[in-house]
Amino acid sequence: MRLSTKHLLGIRDISPNDIQLILDTATQFKEVLQRPVKKVPSLRDVTIVNLFYENSTRTRISFELAEKRLSADTINFSASASSVSKGETLLDTVNNILSMKVDMVVMRHSASGAPHFLAKHIPAAIVNAGDGINEHPTQALLDAFSIRENLGTLEGKKIAIIGDIMHSRVALSNLYLLKKMGAEVMVAGPPTLIPTYMKEAFGVQVEYNLRKALEWCDVANVLRIQLERQNQVLFSSLREYNQAYGVKKEMLASLKKEILVMHPGPINRGVELDSDVADSGQSIILQQVENGVAVRMAVLYLLAGRETP
Amino acid sequence: MRLSTKHLLGIRDISPNDIQLILDTATQFKEVLQRPVKKVPSLRDVTIVNLFYENSTRTRISFELAEKRLSADTINFSASASSVSKGETLLDTVNNILSMKVDMVVMRHSASGAPHFLAKHIPAAIVNAGDGINEHPTQALLDAFSIRENLGTLEGKKIAIIGDIMHSRVALSNLYLLKKMGAEVMVAGPPTLIPTYMKEAFGVQVEYNLRKALEWCDVANVLRIQLERQNQVLFSSLREYNQAYGVKKEMLASLKKEILVMHPGPINRGVELDSDVADSGQSIILQQVENGVAVRMAVLYLLAGRETP
Amino acid sequence: MRLSTKHLLGIRDISPNDIQLILDTATQFKEVLQRPVKKVPSLRDVTIVNLFYENSTRTRISFELAEKRLSADTINFSASASSVSKGETLLDTVNNILSMKVDMVVMRHSASGAPHFLAKHIPAAIVNAGDGINEHPTQALLDAFSIRENLGTLEGKKIAIIGDIMHSRVALSNLYLLKKMGAEVMVAGPPTLIPTYMKEAFGVQVEYNLRKALEWCDVANVLRIQLERQNQVLFSSLREYNQAYGVKKEMLASLKKEILVMHPGPINRGVELDSDVADSGQSIILQQVENGVAVRMAVLYLLAGRETP
Repeated sequence: MRLSTKHLLGIRDISPNDIQLILDTATQFKEVLQRPVKKVPSLRDVTIVNLFYENSTRTRISFELAEKRLSADTINFSASASSVSKGETLLDTVNNILSMKVDMVVMRHSASGAPHFLAKHIPAAIVNAGDGINEHPTQALLDAFSIRENLGTLEGKKIAIIGDIMHSRVALSNLYLLKKMGAEVMVAGPPTLIPTYMKEAFGVQVEYNLRKALEWCDVANVLRIQLERQNQVLFSSLREYNQAYGVKKEMLASLKKEILVMHPGPINRGVELDSDVADSGQSIILQQVENGVAVRMAVLYLLAGRETP
Repeated sequence: MRLSTKHLLGIRDISPNDIQLILDTATQFKEVLQRPVKKVPSLRDVTIVNLFYENSTRTRISFELAEKRLSADTINFSASASSVSKGETLLDTVNNILSMKVDMVVMRHSASGAPHFLAKHIPAAIVNAGDGINEHPTQALLDAFSIRENLGTLEGKKIAIIGDIMHSRVALSNLYLLKKMGAEVMVAGPPTLIPTYMKEAFGVQVEYNLRKALEWCDVANVLRIQLERQNQVLFSSLREYNQAYGVKKEMLASLKKEILVMHPGPINRGVELDSDVADSGQSIILQQVENGVAVRMAVLYLLAGRETP
Repeated sequence: MRLSTKHLLGIRDISPNDIQLILDTATQFKEVLQRPVKKVPSLRDVTIVNLFYENSTRTRISFELAEKRLSADTINFSASASSVSKGETLLDTVNNILSMKVDMVVMRHSASGAPHFLAKHIPAAIVNAGDGINEHPTQALLDAFSIRENLGTLEGKKIAIIGDIMHSRVALSNLYLLKKMGAEVMVAGPPTLIPTYMKEAFGVQVEYNLRKALEWCDVANVLRIQLERQNQVLFSSLREYNQAYGVKKEMLASLKKEILVMHPGPINRGVELDSDVADSGQSIILQQVENGVAVRMAVLYLLAGRETP
């Protein structure tokens, strides 16, 4: 089986079949990562550039590890050490890099739509590693993989996405993916952080009460509060946010069931998630990170035109 | 055949035979880069450090790709993350790196003459990747390679170098190379950006009228205006520069012939070069970038003491 | 033989037997580094992350070279391009990286005890590459290796550590190591830079007169004055420091013997060490740098659970 898409720009643009194929291929790569020798020679002839216009520890390292374990050659490029400061356009930068016979571009950019713009103008495969407040498709894929790994399937499962829905590319990519794969989705958080059109646009439930959201769901995907952006505007203090929307051990314990807790990281401990929840047996946060490498290996492998191994 | 030089510090210092050997070797590496497997095991035992004291996207990536395609081990070092801030001398830094059994140093530095100084004191081969306003020899070599690829030879061809001649290491390296290889050279641009001694020192024609330069030449090598440095001093606006010296489609169309347009990048679109020229069939700018990797492979390969393959 | 420790957090924590084993293994790797092919396949299946929260040219490059010569896969991570600015805790960062199936962490951090804290909470092997003003164990090991290489043994040799003892992790690691291996140790420098408890705590001699220290010792290990920190507080000028405690050629020449001069680098030439000393035949400073790669190969090799080759 091969992907029917040339790029991975967002979850909105790809079919359920492609999602299924990526998740199934990732299962095979996860097995590879359990072996003592975690490297396969699959992309030995492929050169990949990691083009990061925004800082990101875990996403960049996760992609770089995925590339190295596929035996690809990798080139790292970060904005601070770049032509960007010399005023070159994004398209010129990427065209230049591709002229050097680079096969694939993994890109993070602060402008929503930057990878889509590129994909119209360049011949190489592009992987969106996060663009502005638009999408972060590999995060949604690894989230889905992790849910499937724990609950067997996505279909019919109840997922609550909790926190700053309005500014989160993780939320948006998750929404698209979960709906496509037949999950039930609820968004929960303070009214100021949830767009009013959510219900109409996405057919999801909207909930402003954290306890009710947790009572409803099988999985709580707790988003990161962007400390650097919103706290002063939206809450008089982070403490206040924590009191109203922080996921706490006592509340989880008082539910009639054990739900899974997810977080895309990095966690603000004591803000959106308390430490005793993050480190509890209900949390699959580190599993998500581990699965990220397998899922990214699958994405790169399939976008390189390879068939499922 | 082997190079007669141990370093590549500048074009001024090397013989026409060495230039010829590098260009011929690059032709062979360009063929390698057209293959599905672009990697050769030539420098498997060689460790190269890329020592960049100035930012540079394309030059650093181009060298790194060349190194990886020769199977060399590479170490990247950029000034911001370095001992430089601790006040260590350049010579101490390089001696320390070489003591770790590094075989070759690719260096970019803001001080003219920095690589020449090093070459007097250290045993390893040095490749100058741009030193202040002095030379940028691999750029001149890839420019020459690109002209030869399109016009068959450099001998007797008319090359106009256009723009800020005074502050450009690209201009200087091109001048040396083109004269050595028998091309006719003209420098063109505003009088404030062309040293008065150009004619006497280099035996080149000087032209202050862009149209006349374009009418004369087979190839226009358009230099980048260093926005960060000169615009406010030299022109009341970049718009004014564009009107007097920007290369435009209408002017090119009105010539009685089709000339080649080159640019070392990154382009300031709408300043020294209009977009419809940069992206036209006359432009070989992306070819230059592609050839850069082949030429740098040739330079590294030959400086490692290897014979033409 | 195998190491009895799982981490290398500091010299204080490891046994003389382990030190001996590391030094003996390093001798074998030093032989490898003299060969044309300096690479061995020993750690082909091991992934190592270099986690540098403080800048360091030579230490980072030395570790990276050691890793590449052992054929390990390496990932570089520096604080400026990291989640640190997003407020993630150190433990979360490292746990995340380890979840990606990384085997070993080489860490430099400005907080003393950071690697010890990590070692309590994570399963992977940690190599301390310098933590605050606590320890820098691989520097002490390479210093010991260099002394042993020149003098045959450490036992009974007289080592003077000269300079800013109070703020130096190099001094502390050297003190622990030299005492464990039976050397005689003296610390020398201005009273303001030597803790009053040195004699009682470490059983070392304390000397405030540079000449007397040099007359006593076989080896002078001259520490770097941290220009960025102390000069204005402690001396009216660096010139004044140089006059009182700078190691000078004339003083060395007037001794009745030839002592070895060491320095961990980067040197402040003309401050703690004059150039004609640093570059003299008595100086083994570049040997130290060379030995650093061999010693780090030994440390990584042994911590990966391998037996002496």
